[in-house]
Amino acid sequence: MSARVNRQIVYKRARATGMPVPDDFALVESPVPQPREGEFLSRTIYLSIDPHGPRVRMDASHVGRVVADDTVMWNTVSEVVESRNPAFAVGDLVLGTNGWQEYGISSGGGRLGVRKVEPTPAPISYYLGVLGNTGMTAYFPVTQVCRPKAGETFVVSAAAGSVGSVAGQMARIAGCRVVGIAGSDAKCDFVVNELGFDACVNHRTPDLGAALSDACPKGIDVYFDNVAGPVLDTVLNHINMFARIALVGGMALYNAETPPAPPDLWRVLIKRAILQGAGWMEHMDKEAEFRAEMGQWLAEGKIRYREDIVVGIENAPAHLIGLMQGKNIGKALVRVSDDPTRT
Amino acid sequence: MSARVNRQIVYKRARATGMPVPDDFALVESPVPQPREGEFLSRTIYLSIDPHGPRVRMDASHVGRVVADDTVMWNTVSEVVESRNPAFAVGDLVLGTNGWQEYGISSGGGRLGVRKVEPTPAPISYYLGVLGNTGMTAYFPVTQVCRPKAGETFVVSAAAGSVGSVAGQMARIAGCRVVGIAGSDAKCDFVVNELGFDACVNHRTPDLGAALSDACPKGIDVYFDNVAGPVLDTVLNHINMFARIALVGGMALYNAETPPAPPDLWRVLIKRAILQGAGWMEHMDKEAEFRAEMGQWLAEGKIRYREDIVVGIENAPAHLIGLMQGKNIGKALVRVSDDPTRT
Repeated sequence: MSARVNRQIVYKRARATGMPVPDDFALVESPVPQPREGEFLSRTIYLSIDPHGPRVRMDASHVGRVVADDTVMWNTVSEVVESRNPAFAVGDLVLGTNGWQEYGISSGGGRLGVRKVEPTPAPISYYLGVLGNTGMTAYFPVTQVCRPKAGETFVVSAAAGSVGSVAGQMARIAGCRVVGIAGSDAKCDFVVNELGFDACVNHRTPDLGAALSDACPKGIDVYFDNVAGPVLDTVLNHINMFARIALVGGMALYNAETPPAPPDLWRVLIKRAILQGAGWMEHMDKEAEFRAEMGQWLAEGKIRYREDIVVGIENAPAHLIGLMQGKNIGKALVRVSDDPTRT
Repeated sequence: MSARVNRQIVYKRARATGMPVPDDFALVESPVPQPREGEFLSRTIYLSIDPHGPRVRMDASHVGRVVADDTVMWNTVSEVVESRNPAFAVGDLVLGTNGWQEYGISSGGGRLGVRKVEPTPAPISYYLGVLGNTGMTAYFPVTQVCRPKAGETFVVSAAAGSVGSVAGQMARIAGCRVVGIAGSDAKCDFVVNELGFDACVNHRTPDLGAALSDACPKGIDVYFDNVAGPVLDTVLNHINMFARIALVGGMALYNAETPPAPPDLWRVLIKRAILQGAGWMEHMDKEAEFRAEMGQWLAEGKIRYREDIVVGIENAPAHLIGLMQGKNIGKALVRVSDDPTRT
């Protein structure tokens, strides 16, 4: 087994600003490592491509920043192929952080743990998306901060993305008027015609404020913010009294050479609005509840979910760059090796 | 009675930016007006001087902006001296909006109403302060947004002011470590030695961040923001996970020629913090509860309250300007005529 080759994507440099470029990464090969006592080796099946994560860690300001030549670490689903850890058997499917490589070693620990994926009717790739961190990044901010009520107007940015698309559909289930903001007409088309949003605004329109006014004739009660920057600033001009704004992502900030001016908060004061940082990690105690409800919605077709899968570890950088450039629709994934549950 | 003179302060111009100056206002005289059927005439006893209110309305951006030669309208306590309204009798003390003049006409209506002041052990001037809107501006943001818990670190800006001093004392009653931010050493001295705060930082110190670190060794759990601007920005560098920040006032914005840069909200997202606009008007249904609890604290000496009273309507502009320049300690008031309850 040690004769096999492990292809890996590594950081070519430790710091970068601006949009990621292919030259930030390099494909290298090394022997497949051997597990020591207490460890197991697993074959990466899927890796998740997310707008934060790998790229953010190259910012000089990021705390857990990277070192050149290190493998890009991020979330994966993998299959155990060799084990010296009694809790993990060959053939087990695990959710972990192999990163951008074909094989990874784990002791089963780690801050958020490496966990076996329970067999479910859903494809295992969903555990990197709508049934995993991505789904929770929609679910908990919506349930804990946005608290959408029937008849309210709910706006979500990056609406065609893996988080925004779920957040908006949850608001639709709650009976809201749901308005997406997305970066292309193709994405708006997907959001309205495939996901059933009431309207969608292309944020590249010359007058976003006017477009939001048209799409939200009763003003905005809830805003699920995935982008920060000028879109958040414009939305704040249209909020109603007691608006709830979940700050979930900052796409506009991640790659900005100079960050856009933050929004003036006077409007938050005057409107008695809530701006609240929100995510999933602080709600891990409610993960089972999340998985049950989201699984039910998926089974009933109330939440629609699309994946954007490319094949081959060597294509991970380009898939990330495409995501950052707003090119993809649906949850971005790389299939690194065969998925035994999808034949 | 019509022969009497009514001295009034009027706006000399409708628009202004920057700090208010004496030339923004003029003292004029007119005959004391006569009440028509359904109206009453009252003699102003106290008028409240507040950082927002009169001055903010001269900003071009303010909706309810003023007209030159109009009397400056703001909150007063007055005594009915002539009445053609059966609900108000001569001698009644009323909380209303006579504004910056010695006599005012009212029909007893108005958006927030004109109300009789019930006789209480507290001085009637307190109804323009700790038992009125000012007290509620501390009380509701603290109880509804800040929700201080024993052992937490609670920071409040404009800590020597009429709102901040009450907010901080409420947090002290709740068992917090209370740290004030104020604009002079004299104010810090007042806050620590007279109000019992644990510490106070002069925001004019060369390194506010370092001073906050020293005063808040366990970080900041709650921030009651009266000032916005660079102080809010600095505080955000020191917040703990799940911090609650009540946006209550914007002293740093009111007179700025060019507004200071708003704070970067990434820290709010990362810390899962809440930034919430807060005030009193949305909680009028809980006014009785407020008045009972605050009255009790005052009677027991748990809340200490200082007034900064000048005498004579002609001194109102200077008192407002002094307040805006950070010169006063305690609730700013003008005594316009004799207070029959204080002899």
